[in-house]
Amino acid sequence: MTTKWAERYASRVEKMQSSAIREILKITQEPDIISFAGGLPAPELFPVQRIMEASQHALEEQGSTALQYTITEGYPPLREMIVEHMGRYGINCDINNILITAGSQQALDLIGKVFLDAGDNIMVEQPTYLGAIQAWNVYDVQYVTVPTDDDGMLIDGLEQALETNKAKFIYAMPNFQNPMGISTPSVRRKEIVRLADHYNMPIVEDDPYGQLRYEGDDELPLIALDAQLRAENSERFTTGNVIYLSTFSKTLCPGFRVAWVTAPEDVIFRLVQAKQAADLHTGTLAQVVAHETARDGFIEKHVAELRRVYGERRDLMLSLLEELFPPGVTWTRPKGGLFLWIRLPEGMNSTELLKKAVEQKVAFVPGSPFYPLGGGENTMRINFSNALPEQIEEGMKRLAAVIKAAMQSSNP
Amino acid sequence: MTTKWAERYASRVEKMQSSAIREILKITQEPDIISFAGGLPAPELFPVQRIMEASQHALEEQGSTALQYTITEGYPPLREMIVEHMGRYGINCDINNILITAGSQQALDLIGKVFLDAGDNIMVEQPTYLGAIQAWNVYDVQYVTVPTDDDGMLIDGLEQALETNKAKFIYAMPNFQNPMGISTPSVRRKEIVRLADHYNMPIVEDDPYGQLRYEGDDELPLIALDAQLRAENSERFTTGNVIYLSTFSKTLCPGFRVAWVTAPEDVIFRLVQAKQAADLHTGTLAQVVAHETARDGFIEKHVAELRRVYGERRDLMLSLLEELFPPGVTWTRPKGGLFLWIRLPEGMNSTELLKKAVEQKVAFVPGSPFYPLGGGENTMRINFSNALPEQIEEGMKRLAAVIKAAMQSSNP
Repeated sequence: MTTKWAERYASRVEKMQSSAIREILKITQEPDIISFAGGLPAPELFPVQRIMEASQHALEEQGSTALQYTITEGYPPLREMIVEHMGRYGINCDINNILITAGSQQALDLIGKVFLDAGDNIMVEQPTYLGAIQAWNVYDVQYVTVPTDDDGMLIDGLEQALETNKAKFIYAMPNFQNPMGISTPSVRRKEIVRLADHYNMPIVEDDPYGQLRYEGDDELPLIALDAQLRAENSERFTTGNVIYLSTFSKTLCPGFRVAWVTAPEDVIFRLVQAKQAADLHTGTLAQVVAHETARDGFIEKHVAELRRVYGERRDLMLSLLEELFPPGVTWTRPKGGLFLWIRLPEGMNSTELLKKAVEQKVAFVPGSPFYPLGGGENTMRINFSNALPEQIEEGMKRLAAVIKAAMQSSNP
Repeated sequence: MTTKWAERYASRVEKMQSSAIREILKITQEPDIISFAGGLPAPELFPVQRIMEASQHALEEQGSTALQYTITEGYPPLREMIVEHMGRYGINCDINNILITAGSQQALDLIGKVFLDAGDNIMVEQPTYLGAIQAWNVYDVQYVTVPTDDDGMLIDGLEQALETNKAKFIYAMPNFQNPMGISTPSVRRKEIVRLADHYNMPIVEDDPYGQLRYEGDDELPLIALDAQLRAENSERFTTGNVIYLSTFSKTLCPGFRVAWVTAPEDVIFRLVQAKQAADLHTGTLAQVVAHETARDGFIEKHVAELRRVYGERRDLMLSLLEELFPPGVTWTRPKGGLFLWIRLPEGMNSTELLKKAVEQKVAFVPGSPFYPLGGGENTMRINFSNALPEQIEEGMKRLAAVIKAAMQSSNP
């Protein structure tokens, strides 16, 4: 009998979109396309030599640990290093507050598994990170969007959303947000934390890019501000209101798939249970090599180099936007991260534009998939970390020409 | 306000058990315990030197590929190697039928995500693999158990189960089953495939140990027998009825977390969508290094060595059972894999026994967690791959003494 697979899938399969990111990665693999589409780090900056030495050392010194099964929580020396490292960013916790995940994408999925029942609401910035929407759509949830300006969530908008909606948590990316590249100033961060506390609403703080700052001073993450608020009321960290995610994907390399969650112990316990059923643990060799690579101050030096190079690419891209792009097109001016955000004149459609752009061998991500309730058809996300300066120049020329042509044909 | 996390979890959290495997891994880390509990390969057999060379080569020759994001389906040269390799075991497919997963545990979870709605039934061998139960309990499912003897599922029992129950799929482990170590002979495999086809019921075939055979000839996997059946009816592979899982965890090392699913293209497409939301892709470095390690005939030579050593350990353990264990205790005689299965006299409880065994510094896994509907209190799973021969001798002496003492105290 011929097997009819389509009749057998779970109902949640309808919620799984064929990912825009996936299609984008396919485009970027064609060699003659200049792609500003992915969120890829610059491969020429990968610390290959250091990773080679780290791999050799890890395998020589502790091959039988690095190649064996390990505990779900993750390799203890790596978690200890993360605890120490986060202390410098104002986050005080211990090893029991850390779970190593297979990239931050897995952390988003595990949070979904542990928190989301069908029909639950999640409060998100509008626009918000596409990968989070993909992770959580599987759990059949709905979104409450909070309006943003170029300093992040509008506090009035957040308060109104909290007043009128039940939700499981607020999802926020205060540092160099994906997709817009914007960051939230301290005064507004404190308001977000205070409101979340007042409405007893947890925050999932996603911080993949926090260390990649090209101007200004570091701002305390929401998890640290929440701890300050609690310290004023003599509460312990473990009663905190924030689940914090970060990763080595942007500071060392994505190919390790090593990221982490910082959260109160009870939340970590539940996430560990979910992870155990999902994949037992994150790759041991990758964890041991990530630790060996990052240790003894290497990652700090390496991040300083990334800041310098990515900062130059951001500056180049901003100057090309200024020079080449027609009036009516606006963009964000990120202080860090990997992306900037372009707004075309109202009525233009960036998904249509992408087809023409790919014909001209340049790619970006249309903005509308970042709007879970629809909208943003005239927006687009541009990556400035992956391409070389000469590719950025050529690609931005192509893109400007495509946009000008589209604007002329829509206003003949 | 103090955050009350316990009130916020999804209802599925109640279905997540604190894993027996997790507690076991904790026990095995105490240095003076001889553990037959885990399913760990022998670390002294890990091909550390080969993996060191493979890592160097991978990073030197293609560091920017090995450290970057990759496609969800997995590193193409690794998938090509798997296609070729499986051809030798009678499985004919192409690269589009392969998805690389983060261990087979992730394959079980993704299958759950793609196929299981709340309330669905799954047909399983009784007893069945604990990790599968953990992966699928999250999806709020029920189990229909098929009785087994030492040759696997009873065909009458399977037919009766198929006749009287709706289910999403049959979960089967025909090679050296976890937990019992038993394998299913060809004639019975053909019956299983024929019945599944007749009742239009898919099979999930989990085959982590197939290559670790210590006596007898390889038997065709269910996926190959299903393809034969279809060929007789002139159908193509892609209409097949079997989703096949295997892994490098037992043939190279678990620390890579590199396994794979072989299935019809439509199923792979759905699993890819689910994996994308779950973790984007399996670690690139681990995939590239697994490929570099296994290639050019290395894995075949290495597996031959594993067969020799594990076969000797199995023989040693069987002879110690014969020599030391009291009448009334019976056990399976596995032809391969990592485990054997001990049945104590009715009325004895192996969970109680474990406490006494741990006092005597020896550990095993009680059998009852492998029975999703309860039962098996007098059974236990013993691993023979991980401990050295002298540890096996000492550990089996301790275990025999614990069992004898318990039998005497229950029959004074």
